[in-house]
Amino acid sequence: MTISAAPSHTHRMARRAAGFQPSPVRAVFDISMRPGMISLAGGNPYLPVLPIGEIAAMVGDVVERRGLEALQYGSGAGTEELQALICQVMELEGISSASQNIQITAGSQMALELVTKLFCDPGDVVIAEGPTYVGALGVFEGFQAEVAHVTMDAEGVDPDGLQDVISRLKAAGKTIKFFYTTPNFNNPSGISLSVERRQRVVDICRAEGVLIVEDNPYGLLSFDGTLRPAMHTLDPENVFYLGSFSKIFAPGLRVGWIVAPEDVRGRLQIAAEATTICPSVLSQLVVEQYINSFDWRGQIAAYAAVYAERCQATLNALAAHMPGGTQWTTPTGGFFTWVTLPEGTDTGRVLAAAIDAGVVFVPGSAFYADGGGQNQLRIAFSYAPAGQLEEGVKRLAAAIRSI
Amino acid sequence: MTISAAPSHTHRMARRAAGFQPSPVRAVFDISMRPGMISLAGGNPYLPVLPIGEIAAMVGDVVERRGLEALQYGSGAGTEELQALICQVMELEGISSASQNIQITAGSQMALELVTKLFCDPGDVVIAEGPTYVGALGVFEGFQAEVAHVTMDAEGVDPDGLQDVISRLKAAGKTIKFFYTTPNFNNPSGISLSVERRQRVVDICRAEGVLIVEDNPYGLLSFDGTLRPAMHTLDPENVFYLGSFSKIFAPGLRVGWIVAPEDVRGRLQIAAEATTICPSVLSQLVVEQYINSFDWRGQIAAYAAVYAERCQATLNALAAHMPGGTQWTTPTGGFFTWVTLPEGTDTGRVLAAAIDAGVVFVPGSAFYADGGGQNQLRIAFSYAPAGQLEEGVKRLAAAIRSI
Repeated sequence: MTISAAPSHTHRMARRAAGFQPSPVRAVFDISMRPGMISLAGGNPYLPVLPIGEIAAMVGDVVERRGLEALQYGSGAGTEELQALICQVMELEGISSASQNIQITAGSQMALELVTKLFCDPGDVVIAEGPTYVGALGVFEGFQAEVAHVTMDAEGVDPDGLQDVISRLKAAGKTIKFFYTTPNFNNPSGISLSVERRQRVVDICRAEGVLIVEDNPYGLLSFDGTLRPAMHTLDPENVFYLGSFSKIFAPGLRVGWIVAPEDVRGRLQIAAEATTICPSVLSQLVVEQYINSFDWRGQIAAYAAVYAERCQATLNALAAHMPGGTQWTTPTGGFFTWVTLPEGTDTGRVLAAAIDAGVVFVPGSAFYADGGGQNQLRIAFSYAPAGQLEEGVKRLAAAIRSI
Repeated sequence: MTISAAPSHTHRMARRAAGFQPSPVRAVFDISMRPGMISLAGGNPYLPVLPIGEIAAMVGDVVERRGLEALQYGSGAGTEELQALICQVMELEGISSASQNIQITAGSQMALELVTKLFCDPGDVVIAEGPTYVGALGVFEGFQAEVAHVTMDAEGVDPDGLQDVISRLKAAGKTIKFFYTTPNFNNPSGISLSVERRQRVVDICRAEGVLIVEDNPYGLLSFDGTLRPAMHTLDPENVFYLGSFSKIFAPGLRVGWIVAPEDVRGRLQIAAEATTICPSVLSQLVVEQYINSFDWRGQIAAYAAVYAERCQATLNALAAHMPGGTQWTTPTGGFFTWVTLPEGTDTGRVLAAAIDAGVVFVPGSAFYADGGGQNQLRIAFSYAPAGQLEEGVKRLAAAIRSI
């Protein structure tokens, strides 16, 4: 029997596959690998702060002592010990939760995937900050959810604006499933939601029957050590909390988690098991041992000190070099600052000129589902040393002036 | 502002969430932990065969030498070196594939989740062997796909039966997306698809425009070392191949992969990144180093020798103790044998009696989407030593006689 012509697979795909388009961010990351290129694009943590040699010895020891466990299948929810340790970590932001409410996942990205899978039918609406995490937009598109943005100012999302968006969507007959928010050191804006506003946002969402998905990978990376209480503490039944070890320890392990109420946890675990059977047990035991035997709070402080210095270098360079009419946020933690150029500037065009000048960044439109952010851009200060950040900003300013 | 009554979340969930029901398998695994209970239920690999001490040293060394890479974010598709090494592993079953066709995932479970997400709209049909892998049924339910089974005999799925199922579904106006098959040492039946039938199955699916998803976690665990060519070799464009290190090395690392044609790979990677950003880099580097510096082929042979002995002990015990009218498969590899009791026997009732007798297994109905398998059950011989398997089968036989 002869084989007929190779089939095209694209037309057989599910409707949702139309949303699986390559992000412009990917191209930027490829370009950032070019020799001599300064990257203000990638939000990688600066791992040289970690005591790699001691961690290596600890990891070897974990496998030596607990290899039959580390290398075997484990519980779909995660190990009981790590669930308990995660509760300790969350206490820093005021969360008091029982171990059995924790679903451990392969990074908090997977937690967001699961909660979206569990709640969003095609056409359902997710409200998100504008701008919001680009990787969240990919998840929402993958489940054919619509995204409505709510604007932020220096204190984070505006509660009145949130109320307006909810009312408008409901008047249009839309089903809103949840408000996705990164209240601390938002990626990409660096903005945090003020403590005063948290209660109002939580109250509005509770009253309107809108769940909150609180994504908090950066919350502990506060430059001056001030921590804000998690929104989850204000309404544990209505606020699902996503946490991650990627920024406070190491992303290569892929360990994150979600805290969800009892009537959600069971189905979340079933969804998690359908996706990966169980989280990597090796990774979980490594995190357990790290929390148990390293000064993990001191390590967070060490990370934060590096990022604080780099943030300041970036802000200084922006003040020194940016053309008039440019604005930027002043983060008090996290990895990012958000730059707004004069209305009408196209940061896509700036990017082309910037690449020629030897610097890359992620244009603002990547962080909006609705074409917003055209005159904005994200600067990541987490990975490059201060000198490179200064030179990168200088090149960026020249590129802006050149177009 | 007072908080209103705790909201119920269930009614707000997506339609697909109705399919996220606890599997009866879960309860069985909980019961298998009771003291004195013999488990014929869990399909865990027998890790004591691994040289844990040497692996521990290797893992520590990987983090020592490559810690900044192992602990950092990596490529969404996986590391280039592991992609290349996976091609070497697949050569054992005749597959010749380019590295860039490999998408590495957090276990092959995630590969199945991604391909289902990419191809299945609600109401689309997946054809699967009857019986089939229970974890696959969970994935299909999670995307609201319907499952149609095709029967097997000792040589695997019957090509004429497959053709009939396809024709019947098409006549009923159904959209068939793929045939999901575990052609080697099928979980739960232990049956393998004969070499003769592979070409016919591949030809039928190509002619009918039905993709094949070939799930092959057990293929290398052949008791006499005979390997069958992968179905993927017969039609690389139409057969997506899923592989895993869980049974040939260690499941706790969660490293699997999918080989898919070029016009699918890009979207698969986007779907993978939406789920986990990237596979665990630590796990990937550990697998790289394992393949590079251990006798991984010898290790597979050592695993297979243990399973061959345990399989034989199980088959001997079945022959010695089972009541007349009972049939079972004779696996030539893998982890499982499949027992068929006389028509009308309810293995759910047998399970209750078996638990009282101190043995658990998974009833056959777990492996069907359509209520089939009522008089059947799965025995996993991979994990318990031969003596326990014999005692377990003896208890099982007594339980069967008691009802």
